[in-house]
Amino acid sequence: MNMRIEADSIGTLAVPAEAYYGVQSSRAKENFSITGTKLHPELISNLARIKKAAAVVNAQSGNLAVGKKDAIVQACDEIVAGYFHEAFIVDAIQGGAGTSANMNANEVIANRAIEILGGRKGDYRIVHPNDDVNLCQSTNDVFPTAGKMTVLQLLPELIAELEKLEWALGDKAEEFAGVIKMGRTQMQDAVPTTLGRTFQAYRSFVKRDIRHLMSAAEEMKSLNIGGTAIGNAINATPEYLENITAFVSEEAGIAFTQAEDLFDATQNVDGFVRVSAAIKTAAVNLSKMSNDLRLLSSGPRAGIGEINLPAKQNGSSIMPGKVNPVIPEVVSQVAFRVIGNDLTITMAAESGQLELNAFEPIIFHALFESIDCLAHAVATLTVNCIQGIQANEMVCYKQVEESAGIATALCPTIGYQKASAIAKESLKTGKTVRELVLEKGLFSVEETDRILDLKRMAGIPATLVLRDKAI
Amino acid sequence: MNMRIEADSIGTLAVPAEAYYGVQSSRAKENFSITGTKLHPELISNLARIKKAAAVVNAQSGNLAVGKKDAIVQACDEIVAGYFHEAFIVDAIQGGAGTSANMNANEVIANRAIEILGGRKGDYRIVHPNDDVNLCQSTNDVFPTAGKMTVLQLLPELIAELEKLEWALGDKAEEFAGVIKMGRTQMQDAVPTTLGRTFQAYRSFVKRDIRHLMSAAEEMKSLNIGGTAIGNAINATPEYLENITAFVSEEAGIAFTQAEDLFDATQNVDGFVRVSAAIKTAAVNLSKMSNDLRLLSSGPRAGIGEINLPAKQNGSSIMPGKVNPVIPEVVSQVAFRVIGNDLTITMAAESGQLELNAFEPIIFHALFESIDCLAHAVATLTVNCIQGIQANEMVCYKQVEESAGIATALCPTIGYQKASAIAKESLKTGKTVRELVLEKGLFSVEETDRILDLKRMAGIPATLVLRDKAI
Amino acid sequence: MNMRIEADSIGTLAVPAEAYYGVQSSRAKENFSITGTKLHPELISNLARIKKAAAVVNAQSGNLAVGKKDAIVQACDEIVAGYFHEAFIVDAIQGGAGTSANMNANEVIANRAIEILGGRKGDYRIVHPNDDVNLCQSTNDVFPTAGKMTVLQLLPELIAELEKLEWALGDKAEEFAGVIKMGRTQMQDAVPTTLGRTFQAYRSFVKRDIRHLMSAAEEMKSLNIGGTAIGNAINATPEYLENITAFVSEEAGIAFTQAEDLFDATQNVDGFVRVSAAIKTAAVNLSKMSNDLRLLSSGPRAGIGEINLPAKQNGSSIMPGKVNPVIPEVVSQVAFRVIGNDLTITMAAESGQLELNAFEPIIFHALFESIDCLAHAVATLTVNCIQGIQANEMVCYKQVEESAGIATALCPTIGYQKASAIAKESLKTGKTVRELVLEKGLFSVEETDRILDLKRMAGIPATLVLRDKAI
Amino acid sequence: MNMRIEADSIGTLAVPAEAYYGVQSSRAKENFSITGTKLHPELISNLARIKKAAAVVNAQSGNLAVGKKDAIVQACDEIVAGYFHEAFIVDAIQGGAGTSANMNANEVIANRAIEILGGRKGDYRIVHPNDDVNLCQSTNDVFPTAGKMTVLQLLPELIAELEKLEWALGDKAEEFAGVIKMGRTQMQDAVPTTLGRTFQAYRSFVKRDIRHLMSAAEEMKSLNIGGTAIGNAINATPEYLENITAFVSEEAGIAFTQAEDLFDATQNVDGFVRVSAAIKTAAVNLSKMSNDLRLLSSGPRAGIGEINLPAKQNGSSIMPGKVNPVIPEVVSQVAFRVIGNDLTITMAAESGQLELNAFEPIIFHALFESIDCLAHAVATLTVNCIQGIQANEMVCYKQVEESAGIATALCPTIGYQKASAIAKESLKTGKTVRELVLEKGLFSVEETDRILDLKRMAGIPATLVLRDKAI
Repeated sequence: MNMRIEADSIGTLAVPAEAYYGVQSSRAKENFSITGTKLHPELISNLARIKKAAAVVNAQSGNLAVGKKDAIVQACDEIVAGYFHEAFIVDAIQGGAGTSANMNANEVIANRAIEILGGRKGDYRIVHPNDDVNLCQSTNDVFPTAGKMTVLQLLPELIAELEKLEWALGDKAEEFAGVIKMGRTQMQDAVPTTLGRTFQAYRSFVKRDIRHLMSAAEEMKSLNIGGTAIGNAINATPEYLENITAFVSEEAGIAFTQAEDLFDATQNVDGFVRVSAAIKTAAVNLSKMSNDLRLLSSGPRAGIGEINLPAKQNGSSIMPGKVNPVIPEVVSQVAFRVIGNDLTITMAAESGQLELNAFEPIIFHALFESIDCLAHAVATLTVNCIQGIQANEMVCYKQVEESAGIATALCPTIGYQKASAIAKESLKTGKTVRELVLEKGLFSVEETDRILDLKRMAGIPATLVLRDKAI
Repeated sequence: MNMRIEADSIGTLAVPAEAYYGVQSSRAKENFSITGTKLHPELISNLARIKKAAAVVNAQSGNLAVGKKDAIVQACDEIVAGYFHEAFIVDAIQGGAGTSANMNANEVIANRAIEILGGRKGDYRIVHPNDDVNLCQSTNDVFPTAGKMTVLQLLPELIAELEKLEWALGDKAEEFAGVIKMGRTQMQDAVPTTLGRTFQAYRSFVKRDIRHLMSAAEEMKSLNIGGTAIGNAINATPEYLENITAFVSEEAGIAFTQAEDLFDATQNVDGFVRVSAAIKTAAVNLSKMSNDLRLLSSGPRAGIGEINLPAKQNGSSIMPGKVNPVIPEVVSQVAFRVIGNDLTITMAAESGQLELNAFEPIIFHALFESIDCLAHAVATLTVNCIQGIQANEMVCYKQVEESAGIATALCPTIGYQKASAIAKESLKTGKTVRELVLEKGLFSVEETDRILDLKRMAGIPATLVLRDKAI
Repeated sequence: MNMRIEADSIGTLAVPAEAYYGVQSSRAKENFSITGTKLHPELISNLARIKKAAAVVNAQSGNLAVGKKDAIVQACDEIVAGYFHEAFIVDAIQGGAGTSANMNANEVIANRAIEILGGRKGDYRIVHPNDDVNLCQSTNDVFPTAGKMTVLQLLPELIAELEKLEWALGDKAEEFAGVIKMGRTQMQDAVPTTLGRTFQAYRSFVKRDIRHLMSAAEEMKSLNIGGTAIGNAINATPEYLENITAFVSEEAGIAFTQAEDLFDATQNVDGFVRVSAAIKTAAVNLSKMSNDLRLLSSGPRAGIGEINLPAKQNGSSIMPGKVNPVIPEVVSQVAFRVIGNDLTITMAAESGQLELNAFEPIIFHALFESIDCLAHAVATLTVNCIQGIQANEMVCYKQVEESAGIATALCPTIGYQKASAIAKESLKTGKTVRELVLEKGLFSVEETDRILDLKRMAGIPATLVLRDKAI
Repeated sequence: MNMRIEADSIGTLAVPAEAYYGVQSSRAKENFSITGTKLHPELISNLARIKKAAAVVNAQSGNLAVGKKDAIVQACDEIVAGYFHEAFIVDAIQGGAGTSANMNANEVIANRAIEILGGRKGDYRIVHPNDDVNLCQSTNDVFPTAGKMTVLQLLPELIAELEKLEWALGDKAEEFAGVIKMGRTQMQDAVPTTLGRTFQAYRSFVKRDIRHLMSAAEEMKSLNIGGTAIGNAINATPEYLENITAFVSEEAGIAFTQAEDLFDATQNVDGFVRVSAAIKTAAVNLSKMSNDLRLLSSGPRAGIGEINLPAKQNGSSIMPGKVNPVIPEVVSQVAFRVIGNDLTITMAAESGQLELNAFEPIIFHALFESIDCLAHAVATLTVNCIQGIQANEMVCYKQVEESAGIATALCPTIGYQKASAIAKESLKTGKTVRELVLEKGLFSVEETDRILDLKRMAGIPATLVLRDKAI
């Protein structure tokens, strides 16, 4: 391969002559061969967006020649458009608070700009990765800024998927509004409810999670760009410091503000911890619902069997006809991943030292993964599971009718102890609570109908006519 | 001991004749001898507050005789005043979603009310634990309601301690505003800052944590009281359902609202997960700062030694004169506990099933402990550490002056590469950057003074006169 | 109160004249008012055992006067016998790697020894906490040694409880050997098994956990006692260094060895991480089994209902006759606590710095709690749950007979696809697989009996006669 | 694209005519578009190894035609050789306990075997994915078996890297044996040690971690292959059940044994939890050491500066000449990932239900990642950091000489309190402890030389001549 020689403070190194990356990217690749996973494509684009904004601001303040600026801007636009991503060779997990990622961007942009200006790659006299592309910047403000931009671009996808889920759950809540079923507490028969209520309760938590994700996203809108190395804005010009946030906002299409305390914003990464916590909480709720779906669809014969999940694939390589709740299962697995990622992020944040948190690369890697995977999991949950759920209305109804749990409704009239005796007799004899009440002459048939009215207990409006297959 | 015989659905059991608790508390104590820790005293008081509110509402709607109501109210007031807590014998960790805790409250209140009415303890014909004290209630709405009330009573103490910490940090930020010191990134000398900025950055995160804790507290204000067993309000009268939240609010002195979806509010406990996450995030930040304090005070000779923490106790049983950063150490340990508790709460929330989360007891136990311990840790941090911190100004200044990091300020004029060479030469020869710049004739003395002005680099206003011991 | 004045390197402090503790314990109590929980009583006793061993070794080497030694030994014996524990006033969570706990022991022992020798408490010329009681020791070797002794004393209780659980599970495995039931994978009906196999599988993991706990305990037998401050044995005499481990072993009744590398043993606490991991793994298995028990006992009407857990207390304050799986619920809650503690311990271990881990207090607090609570949880699980479990044999059998899962047994003869069609037809029509096989004339009655022999499928030896109520 | 139509129990689906995968892989890909990461290549190869072993055993027992067997064996060998991996299209995280992964293997092998036998892909009359390739197997025994094989293949790489690290640390321990330096506890100057001891202590934990990883690997050698769906070996022939483990062992080159209790081995996945715990513990130790390296190399001017890490890349995009501890930083980040993965695995294990743990895909994904990433991190740590570490002997020595900590050596002769006074005076006046001792006439020069002999305190044999640059 044709090689060119580049130098840095460590010494010289041969780089493929045609490579857009340079010596520092090469060393980083060598040093950090950890996961084999590259930087998130959105993160790459956001680095380019910041570099573009910086070039424009620097040119305006006379700090960067217009020719260089134009070349840098074009290079950045191309990267945002998806070009040259393969020249970002550094691993997602890397030492150094993102210096390697930032330098990879600086080198690729410099070399592409050099190329645009008719130079030969590596001839940094034309455009210099540090002195031009990185002008007025430090990894320590560029990298977290790019991270926040990325979170703000990825979160809406997750929120959109949650909104679709909410609608699907709402549809099911309506569809199943008249399906009386046994409510269970601690896995034991409790008192009647409806399947509609069940899905409505799921819908309620999804709405709440959406709200909290949106609120957590606000955390991301305060930037330390301009603070450079530690927040004191060293080497940033006053014009740059004043304008860079606005120009980054414009590139990103997001209304960012400059952090009040740039030192704090450089060293404390609790904003990412908060976003991760909001995602984790959503994952906890989704996994709880997924467990419920697996419980309610258990069977078909030897389980609860209140609902059928849509069959999406053969359930077993050995057991014919088996259909498994594979979608809820994958949701829980993603939730376990998200919870693990939340711990990783928590530890990385806690381990920050003095003026900088050096562990942002793993924070970003874990956080972007959590958002992406959860969004994908929710998408398949909505389309491949929730929308196709069917109720086994007869199963639901019969379980209520035969249950001793409805003796609860006798308490206000005959007291907890007597009601308890009837419940136990029902379980022992197999007679229904209703039969026993009538047998013992406790109430007239009419009174019994009123007291043990399943629709009333389940909270179904008297005006709602149940489908006849159910009763 | 004199015993009385009580009965429940399991059978009969002898209870000390003078005990306020009854058969169900006794069985629970037997079943759950786990931690040896009792219910949080605030939780006990809040159970009484709810019982009182319920009795008043039930009496107003004619559902409970006024005589019973008056006795129940008096019993509850006594418990809130701190009496009879020793009769709450059940373990903090217990099976059953809090049924044992709720029944312990029902039994103690019933027996005390019986006593007030001149009866003999255990004569539940006078006041019945279930039919009277628990009237219109279920553990499943009472227990989470008591839990939320408790969180809302404990959080202000934590917030108040954080506010004191914020003031103390603010005082130090002001006190140290003129102390130039080396800023460090990745534990390596970076560029100058001031010790004031350091404490200001800590103050900034504390302010943010206070804000987020207050916001998380809002999560706790939506109650499922009235929803009884699963949210369908079975056995609650319409009057009760309509009024109970207002009466509970009055007892608690907190403006609660009834949850929009009582089913959701009964089964999903993500509100506690969110509060725990906010506390965890504060703990993460506090532990990061504590680590910093230990770093900055390391030495006294063989460390960084920029600050002295106040000596609060002998540091060692063997090494004379040693003073250790024991307060920051205990803060980090509490942070590790809080992070562990956050995981416990997360798992308990994820494991909820169907219409109820059966694991609320461990959620409450862990959450109350997190709040209490963190409040105590912050209190000792403020008083026994932050307020007494002293700066070693000469050490701070000398470290900056001798550092190669200030070569950063040369970049805008001579470029990254040349500045890099000077930095390396400084490190190799021991000459200061300033000496090298002058030696090489790069700038005049005046220019050098301007470019390498430490005060400017550190962001200290030119008008601020440094104390002469520092320069 | 009568006070005496004591001095340390911080200054003077008034201590109650009759207190066995002294100035350093008092300061520690002031500094660390965190949890309100005192040191574990076994840890206190073990500190005394170490102090006794040290005094004896030091007297033998002529380093400590015999009179002092005798008084110290008596004081230590009294503490081991349970006296003076109330004089240990420091919080379980404390800064300083256990210095406060160690000094509390030194002070109590010194003052009790002074008293024995006829002196007045606080007159440390008679017996000095540091120069006599702590002679040749440092907190940094005493505290971890006491911690390891404590783990080795507590673990056997947990192991003993697990052994009782194993026996109980073995009894149930035998009792239920002939109870055919549906095996489920992914909550869906799979192929037949027996309830005996289910309990046998639980028994198998318990045996494995016992083995691993015993193996992890070995980790605790390597001590750094004698290494003093950092492992270099500074201020320990050669005789002491040579003999102390043997004397500690004798006091503890445990065969300890001196760590090969005392520096490593002082700074790295991975031994505790490993023990915690073994406990955590047991907790994971126990929680999985507890979940199963709740699933299998769900119902009684609207659930799986294969087994009944013994009723140990009223299940509900509102729903009469309800019996809940409160014991498995408490086991899972303890498991969540243990898993949280494991994280706390992991973080504390990771945060150690240089020659010492300053966070041992929280490691010990969390680890002892995990062992104690899990032992208690297992104890109640065995006695109050497993031993009383009853099988609903008819339910079990009927679920198998009606299941489509047994079509799996057709695969070897008619292939996966045809078997699949029959399974699906069974589910659709409600006809049993057996009925369909015969209806379609796929096999003769005899062949069908052989192929669909539930006993064979469930792996029940043909010679085992099932109880007639089951078939 | 040319398509072929395939059918499963869900219906029909068009698959690219030339695809080796079939309908079930396609559906799985559709259902689980989660991470974009495919199955680990070793896992794919191991699935093929198992399929080969099964085919051979089935042919031997006359259960599979020799022609089919030969074709299946060839297809499997090709996959092990690295071919057709791109036909494994399912995501690493998937619902269904690995059914999709297993069916993907079954389909690819069947189609390749069909091709070998001259048929057209999709013509499963020639070789059937379920009836032939999956013969006598279930996902539930194949997938965990493949997982354990993979762990046993990946662990040796991690262990080998740890061994190289151990050697490198041993070299440094020897190289630095004579470098006296200050030992620190709680970040405060304690007593002298040597840099050699420091690296020896690191070496000691690495040795221990290697031993524990090897021991944990043993956990993986017990297989449930042959147990099929739930451990009852349904549809496995007796010959197969007897022989499959030996044939799998031969394919893998690992001496596996059949699990004693196949039910337990199918449902309980604690073996993976144990392996993960061993890896986590190693990660904890490695991160602790990495933190130490960052502390000891902090500076170069405003830090501890005892050692220099090799410069591997420019440290900063803005601060010239800065060299950062990027390798230790990446090690800690990987440790945070591994600890997060351990939690994910723990939760997935705890969530298993009844006869199967459905969450093995995420367990494997996280566990393989932990092993791979940690191996890579250790590799770069050894080569790019440890091997190039240099001591700053003068810095080390001077810090000791000036330290007050050496007053500890005075305790045995003048007592803790007097030694404490001298230490404090030294810190206040700047005079060394030695100077003060002589000034006060406490000892003669010779006695002082002996008592304050730094070499003795640091535990350096008197015979070891220190390099003269150090003294």
